[in-house]
Amino acid sequence: DLVEDAIAFFVAKGLAGRRVLITAGPTFEPIDPVRGITNLSSGKMGFAIARACRQAGADVALVAGPTMLPTPREVRRVNVQTARQMADAVHAEMAAAAADVFIAVAAVADWRVANASASKLKKTEGGAPPALEFVQNPDILAGVAARPDAPYCVGFAAESEDLERNGQEKRRRKGVPLLVANIGHATFGRDDNELLLIDAEGMRRLERAPKDRLAAELVVELARRVGPAR
Amino acid sequence: DLVEDAIAFFVAKGLAGRRVLITAGPTFEPIDPVRGITNLSSGKMGFAIARACRQAGADVALVAGPTMLPTPREVRRVNVQTARQMADAVHAEMAAAAADVFIAVAAVADWRVANASASKLKKTEGGAPPALEFVQNPDILAGVAARPDAPYCVGFAAESEDLERNGQEKRRRKGVPLLVANIGHATFGRDDNELLLIDAEGMRRLERAPKDRLAAELVVELARRVGPAR
Repeated sequence: DLVEDAIAFFVAKGLAGRRVLITAGPTFEPIDPVRGITNLSSGKMGFAIARACRQAGADVALVAGPTMLPTPREVRRVNVQTARQMADAVHAEMAAAAADVFIAVAAVADWRVANASASKLKKTEGGAPPALEFVQNPDILAGVAARPDAPYCVGFAAESEDLERNGQEKRRRKGVPLLVANIGHATFGRDDNELLLIDAEGMRRLERAPKDRLAAELVVELARRVGPAR
Repeated sequence: DLVEDAIAFFVAKGLAGRRVLITAGPTFEPIDPVRGITNLSSGKMGFAIARACRQAGADVALVAGPTMLPTPREVRRVNVQTARQMADAVHAEMAAAAADVFIAVAAVADWRVANASASKLKKTEGGAPPALEFVQNPDILAGVAARPDAPYCVGFAAESEDLERNGQEKRRRKGVPLLVANIGHATFGRDDNELLLIDAEGMRRLERAPKDRLAAELVVELARRVGPAR
């Protein structure tokens, strides 16, 4: 705590007075009461960004999917499991007090299981596998960006290839000013990462570094664009 | 560590010299490089049993699915992701040195995705969901029980209902001397649990208690049946 206090003291308050809403971690989409579909996101990047925003003076709310990570100091955390719960929690936060910045770091499931079972699916003798039907989940980032009180929106894209093209395309499709692209299997579960920031002006690469360090660099970029509250 | 030393000193060495092999945690079955199917198992029960077996004097190997839990002291841990990796690791352990006891606590995926994608599945405009095909995973417990050098086998059953009937049926089907049944949604992710022990003599209920406590009680039951090495 002393160390965090010292860091916070020396960090420029580039987001002082700003309200920042962040999603982090994976979501978990039930198949039955015990099984579900998820992804390898650890939540580390989003939690690091929440901590860095708080250290830069922002008021931070963090909507987190299932992860065992500790809550960053002075960050308000709301735990959710599914994409729909995450969307509900995000819009409830916006309804309570409009955010200035929304950073969608969570790796949200694109699909959920339409025919989830109320009791545990049994492995049968014949070995017939479950027939799962899928339905698309709400797009949380697009939903926030489409609000009349839309904050400055930052999207994250976990790609498996062609970061530049996929990232630029995703930025256009989502209609957000800033898109942060990274390689899914080079970030999920790891303590370090590398980021590609894409905005209307072009691209900037943040070299591989610990996630805490990248989060601090991202907050500097964010403060340049949003700045402290006036 | 001092506390663990003290506990270990006072715990009866009911499994002294025994080699115990334990699986714990969920498995993760890839859908694509970032998504997969898993379950809500935290690994806490299996890790607690590994610790309790070690404290009772056993030589313990722990094959663990993805979990952020710390490794119990003086327990050898092998990390795996999928059911097939877990099966391979278990048989490799048995090949290296036959275990006296095998405790299958892991919540192993019954099915894996047959048509997993090498690159991340994209959410398309039309929103066509992925067509997943499933194939049954190897039954790790049955595989170990069928070995010529089969150890004393303990199975775990996470049921959503009718613990007694489902547990007894599972014990017969798996052909194991001891089956421990519990309710999946009343144990996964929790620090406490309740267990139903089923063997040829009948059933014994271990009342709801912290998992560390239940693990110690289970080891007493195990020591009654297996005992220290002669």
